[in-house]
Amino acid sequence: MGSPFDVTPAELRRRTSLKWHTYPEDVLPAFVAEMDVQPLEAVVTAVTKAMRDGDTGYEVGPTSPRGTAYAEAFAQFAARRHGWDVPVERTRMVPDVMLGIVEVVALLTRPGDRVVINPPVYPPFRSFLEHAGRRVVTAPLTPTGRLDLDALDRAFAGASVHLLCHPHNPTGTLHTADELGAVRDLAARHDVRVVADEIHAPLTLGDEPFVPTTTIIPDAIALHSASKAFNLAGLKAALAVPGPAADELRDMPEIVGHGVSHVASIAHQAAYREGDAWLDDVRQTIRAHGDLVAQTLVERLPQARWHRPAATYFAWLDVRETPAVVATGTDPARLLLHEGRLAVNAGPTFGDEGAGHVRLNLATPTPILRDALDRLVTTLAAPV
Amino acid sequence: MGSPFDVTPAELRRRTSLKWHTYPEDVLPAFVAEMDVQPLEAVVTAVTKAMRDGDTGYEVGPTSPRGTAYAEAFAQFAARRHGWDVPVERTRMVPDVMLGIVEVVALLTRPGDRVVINPPVYPPFRSFLEHAGRRVVTAPLTPTGRLDLDALDRAFAGASVHLLCHPHNPTGTLHTADELGAVRDLAARHDVRVVADEIHAPLTLGDEPFVPTTTIIPDAIALHSASKAFNLAGLKAALAVPGPAADELRDMPEIVGHGVSHVASIAHQAAYREGDAWLDDVRQTIRAHGDLVAQTLVERLPQARWHRPAATYFAWLDVRETPAVVATGTDPARLLLHEGRLAVNAGPTFGDEGAGHVRLNLATPTPILRDALDRLVTTLAAPV
Ligand SMILES: Cc1ncc(COP(=O)(O)O)c(C=O)c1O
Ligand SMILES: Cc1ncc(COP(=O)(O)O)c(C=O)c1O
Repeated sequence: MGSPFDVTPAELRRRTSLKWHTYPEDVLPAFVAEMDVQPLEAVVTAVTKAMRDGDTGYEVGPTSPRGTAYAEAFAQFAARRHGWDVPVERTRMVPDVMLGIVEVVALLTRPGDRVVINPPVYPPFRSFLEHAGRRVVTAPLTPTGRLDLDALDRAFAGASVHLLCHPHNPTGTLHTADELGAVRDLAARHDVRVVADEIHAPLTLGDEPFVPTTTIIPDAIALHSASKAFNLAGLKAALAVPGPAADELRDMPEIVGHGVSHVASIAHQAAYREGDAWLDDVRQTIRAHGDLVAQTLVERLPQARWHRPAATYFAWLDVRETPAVVATGTDPARLLLHEGRLAVNAGPTFGDEGAGHVRLNLATPTPILRDALDRLVTTLAAPV
Repeated sequence: MGSPFDVTPAELRRRTSLKWHTYPEDVLPAFVAEMDVQPLEAVVTAVTKAMRDGDTGYEVGPTSPRGTAYAEAFAQFAARRHGWDVPVERTRMVPDVMLGIVEVVALLTRPGDRVVINPPVYPPFRSFLEHAGRRVVTAPLTPTGRLDLDALDRAFAGASVHLLCHPHNPTGTLHTADELGAVRDLAARHDVRVVADEIHAPLTLGDEPFVPTTTIIPDAIALHSASKAFNLAGLKAALAVPGPAADELRDMPEIVGHGVSHVASIAHQAAYREGDAWLDDVRQTIRAHGDLVAQTLVERLPQARWHRPAATYFAWLDVRETPAVVATGTDPARLLLHEGRLAVNAGPTFGDEGAGHVRLNLATPTPILRDALDRLVTTLAAPV
């Protein structure tokens, strides 16, 4: 078995998903949260078998004996990886993380209620919440990518829910037990409930552990899915996991389960059950890619600033002070696309706080990442 | 190539989806809209290839050149099967039909607005609309399963949308061009917009054609999916198709596309492109199963009444006058489950109008259907 990243550009271009088919051929895509990896064999086998067997009907609901298969696979994974005891019987399956967030927020709030987010943050947080008729209030992260407790204290006044991103996309921040404890105390004081999007939890990169939110905030509700860590965005499924003091999932309408894909559930179960070694390989390469980014920036683009991600496969780069951005005043993602033929995620899509930043995807073979970094430093180092 | 229905009970029990895993082993499942069929080979091949290739990222959106692959496959299918010219560029992908209905209704109405449905009808119609904060108004079908124009006229007063089920689940009614024309005129008079769930359209059984709603009602919006006709409930994807005078899909928020499964889209495209022969085999068997039901009821349960479905794989049976129901006054689905060890869908779940009815699933191998009919007539013919 080689590395999951043993994949050629030709193979990647044969894929028909978003990453390699949004821009012209001469643009190198380093945007969007897809990984350029070979699939986990156990997932291929499980899905192929389901297709052959014609096992393409409805996912069994939680009232049936087989209804907890996804939750059980996740619980065993969470016990092995995070030392976390997941209450299988109290979880609920949801079609994907974003729809799960919307449905959990619907259980905890009414239309017009305020939900606090921490920009720069995954752009759908704002758009899904607003589409669901909630008002979004911001408590931006600190410049080092940490939760800002004073800003949270202010934002929590009159708010109903705090939608936490843990690990945080795009900064890769892992919130510490102390920080989560502080959020718990503030939330209790303001009567705010915490909903935690933990989709990137398996993708820790160093020694810092992922601390499950509900182990520190008992009335929080967390969302999990195998879709990021195992590159299964095209096979959507997710799980809502309540803390010991969160009872609301009992009232999740049955119809929310209607949207769950049975075949996606089979794929995710295989990943959670048999994916540890593959995942560790992926994490190791992403960590090494962090070293490569650090070294490249020090040597060739010293004006760039960033904090190494503790998790996720993103590098969130502050390039405001780089020569090309200073000279042109142009959004760096635009410069990179037009001058460097490199597609990254534009910082401002993550909130106003993202101005002058770009999000670079590190989950690609090393030669491709080198090419991306070349384009990035060449474009930004030289005044245009 | 044998029939798609060449599948054994042992194979069916190995599947892990809802149909064969909700009830104890001695209960024969003839409920829920899953078909007991061998999968269409083209779908197995397409999904297997996508998994092998690691093609499991995000579905390409409609702004990209590849973003209309699903719509194009559907449009070619619709042209071949229904003589219908689908406006590919104006369609929008949605995660599944029910979420598509909710999002289309959200474009056409405001919370609290009234939506008209025609019970007995697919139970999620009511629950999804109510979950989305709309008020449900009913215009029941006539006793022969046709649209009741007087009831519609009354229900349309003060309503915003008519959610049509065409073909109609559970009765299998195909609305005629004349009926759709009458709906168009009534809707225009009352300023009501028509949304048509056409998921069962490929499953016509006789000479009566499926008339696409938007060809008669220009400002209607229809929902389509390969998931029913090709037994892909476990791989969800769907398409919203506007009539020539319906512009609102332009305003469909981009985030609605977030929930679309790329692998499901690949599966559905293969079905739409290469499924005609398989589908025709399936339709032929279901039609023959209609004959079998008719003959069995005439010979052994003459008190049962039904109208042969023109489409769908359901038999909607009025068993109010059968001896066991008369003698016990019990819901027939309950009698069948407890006395006959046969699981059917209970009529009242489709609306009050469904009292005394059951929905029987005909999409199963003939020997299994014979067993189901045996259990049904034996239970209902004899006073308990
Ligand atoms: C923080 C975060 N949440 C959710 C998602 C998407 O999850 P899903 O497709 O299950 O809604 C992503 C995808 O990148 C993400 O980064
Ligand atoms: C009329 C009708 N609409 C919708 C559905 C479900 O479609 P989806 O899973 O795409 O929401 C069904 C399933 O049986 C149905 O009968």
